[in-house]
Amino acid sequence: MTYKILDKDSIPEYLDGLPKVMDVLGKGTGLDIEEIGDGNLNYVYKIRRSDSPDRSVVLKQAVPYLRMAGEGWPLSRERMTFEIRALIVYNDLVPTFVPTIYHSDEEMSVLVMQTLDDHTVVRYSMIDGVVFSDIGHDVGTFLAETLFRTSALGMESIDRRRLMDQFNLNDELCKLTENFVFTFPYMEHESNYLNPVTNKFARENLRCDTEYKLRVLKFKELFLTKADALLHADLHTGSLMANQQETYIIDTEFAYFGPFGFDVGKIIANFLMSYTSHFYHSKDDSYQNWILVEVMNIWKRFEVRFLELWAAQGESAMLVDGLLAELELREYKKRFMLNILHDSIGFCACSLARRTLGIAGVADIRGIEDMEIRSKLEIINLELSRLLLSMNDKINTIEQFESTLRSFYANINLDSLELVK
Amino acid sequence: MTYKILDKDSIPEYLDGLPKVMDVLGKGTGLDIEEIGDGNLNYVYKIRRSDSPDRSVVLKQAVPYLRMAGEGWPLSRERMTFEIRALIVYNDLVPTFVPTIYHSDEEMSVLVMQTLDDHTVVRYSMIDGVVFSDIGHDVGTFLAETLFRTSALGMESIDRRRLMDQFNLNDELCKLTENFVFTFPYMEHESNYLNPVTNKFARENLRCDTEYKLRVLKFKELFLTKADALLHADLHTGSLMANQQETYIIDTEFAYFGPFGFDVGKIIANFLMSYTSHFYHSKDDSYQNWILVEVMNIWKRFEVRFLELWAAQGESAMLVDGLLAELELREYKKRFMLNILHDSIGFCACSLARRTLGIAGVADIRGIEDMEIRSKLEIINLELSRLLLSMNDKINTIEQFESTLRSFYANINLDSLELVK
Repeated sequence: MTYKILDKDSIPEYLDGLPKVMDVLGKGTGLDIEEIGDGNLNYVYKIRRSDSPDRSVVLKQAVPYLRMAGEGWPLSRERMTFEIRALIVYNDLVPTFVPTIYHSDEEMSVLVMQTLDDHTVVRYSMIDGVVFSDIGHDVGTFLAETLFRTSALGMESIDRRRLMDQFNLNDELCKLTENFVFTFPYMEHESNYLNPVTNKFARENLRCDTEYKLRVLKFKELFLTKADALLHADLHTGSLMANQQETYIIDTEFAYFGPFGFDVGKIIANFLMSYTSHFYHSKDDSYQNWILVEVMNIWKRFEVRFLELWAAQGESAMLVDGLLAELELREYKKRFMLNILHDSIGFCACSLARRTLGIAGVADIRGIEDMEIRSKLEIINLELSRLLLSMNDKINTIEQFESTLRSFYANINLDSLELVK
Repeated sequence: MTYKILDKDSIPEYLDGLPKVMDVLGKGTGLDIEEIGDGNLNYVYKIRRSDSPDRSVVLKQAVPYLRMAGEGWPLSRERMTFEIRALIVYNDLVPTFVPTIYHSDEEMSVLVMQTLDDHTVVRYSMIDGVVFSDIGHDVGTFLAETLFRTSALGMESIDRRRLMDQFNLNDELCKLTENFVFTFPYMEHESNYLNPVTNKFARENLRCDTEYKLRVLKFKELFLTKADALLHADLHTGSLMANQQETYIIDTEFAYFGPFGFDVGKIIANFLMSYTSHFYHSKDDSYQNWILVEVMNIWKRFEVRFLELWAAQGESAMLVDGLLAELELREYKKRFMLNILHDSIGFCACSLARRTLGIAGVADIRGIEDMEIRSKLEIINLELSRLLLSMNDKINTIEQFESTLRSFYANINLDSLELVK
């Protein structure tokens, strides 16, 4: 079907030709169509059968510009091609963690999928102090299943290169990450967030720290050149929708083959920024303690499940029977997981800095109106970024990571919100 | 044009429709067509104008099977697609180092190009002790120009991903490298070379050495996942044709985006295997001394030219103006080149082992009929592989690499051809 932008008037006719979608919506009276979503990038509609509102789907369509900025900011609608392709892969690998696809159309840049009515965006729920009891476990499982099973350990070589080929041209969104995560926050740049206090700290402590910047560049190089596995590549708490029973991962348009640690480190960074924000949002440390437990659960579950999948895997691009003896394989696995841990902590440090200094902040902190408090929390995140990037390859167990985080946060003076050194 | 296999009868008609080729061959009497090449993979013809034999072209066509083994060993003729694409890139980047393309046809898997009549295959000339005075400089220049200018330092991000996309599906030949360079030689495998003495050494010294094997796997992982730059990916002395004035690089069908060090390390390994072979082929060490000078020249020229290109480069995917201060950039370059050196030595070690233990040997050594001498030279190459892989990341300058090689070779007893420890 030739591309055209759908609207409330043209959607019913478009859906009418799609048997799977009509199975979900059922036959009957008209459709109620409501525009939802934050509208930053795409059009998102919720569509219900008028007389059976529990029969519903979500339709998402990309337009060939940055919707929040208008037609003057062109952005290829190809991003929906990659969102569709990744969601198809995830529907296969981790069907319980992603919306079911009812219809996808790369030509029309349209995706029709399961409605998540009973779930909230985790970032905003975490600002409100909602506890999700399984979230660390769920995120860890999602990471292990998607990263292992698209890696050279979990796939045969030729199949894997053919899967990579589906994502190789997601170049515009990769470039956004390269610039906005790994470049602009570490220099004076017009796109950066302009809080003078936070910026002064960055200028005096990060942007003149050679070691810090060269380590950021090391992780930028990994993002640009290391194709470990199919990444979600934008896995933050705003890409999670959850309730007390389920966790869903959404918004897969950045999907690309990149380094394992990028997804792992980015989601952990977002949990840690929530932790920092609760020096303000909470009156005691109980919610913060829950967050830290869940951060540990993300890694622990990721590691356990990754190794389970590895144990169940036959030959792969990396390993064939008869190459490694049992003790050699054990040592190889140990080094492999350690390397992912080091990289995850490094990428976590980069995410902390970019979400503090770059154009895209996190609502957990940018939503705080009191600028003095906001600046202090921002500086805490930058101090943490600096600490983690100075020692990411010296933290050799998840317990060491936990104690590093606990000591760091224990040194925050609760009255001044400053790091006591 | 629909694919069909060309032969001496059908070639004249095929060429007749190609104006650029006819410009080279000129009009006139008939064509003399001679089948040349080793015939391992492809058909290669030299075509001359009968009455002006200096007017000539080479035509290379891939068939959908491994030619040396026959139609029972299918191998996609897609390999010619990647040979063509790489040669087009190289014609642009390094025109003086590669044959000029007169015609290419991905559908027909055909390449028509410049004849290299006045040049010999470097491997065989080196067996004969021929000195090529500029070869290290030429190879170093080729490596720097092709690797820098297809890297994230030498290209803008989106252009680079689009170039990568042209090579992403060269999956069958990548898999050959993964298996035959990085896997089978390090285990008992039916494809391996069966010299009992050499194999016994490998079994007792390499295939049970955990550290050695895990380092090989580290480099295998880099080959599988690290996309630094467009590699030739089969750069050995049999892919070089030279005379006293010129060096040409041929046979680009393995081209793929991979780690910098792979091309650098592989060509150096082939020079070192020639060095080892001259314990037998030469009566003194003068040729060996020349080889070692050229190995040093490869790296020195590579590094100088890579840094020259970097100095002349504007913004790139990796670096933008204003990110790094001058001293920071200097430190970054130092670490960047050091990392390539470490990886190059590691890949060199892998190449030494695979060319000794794997199916594909080097004529420099496998051509020696005296099995006792051949085994001793093979074991020298394996000892060198082991040494280099045990310390590749501790060799921090090219001078240290040179002294490591000199000490190693100085410990070879010239009578017994054994390493004195």
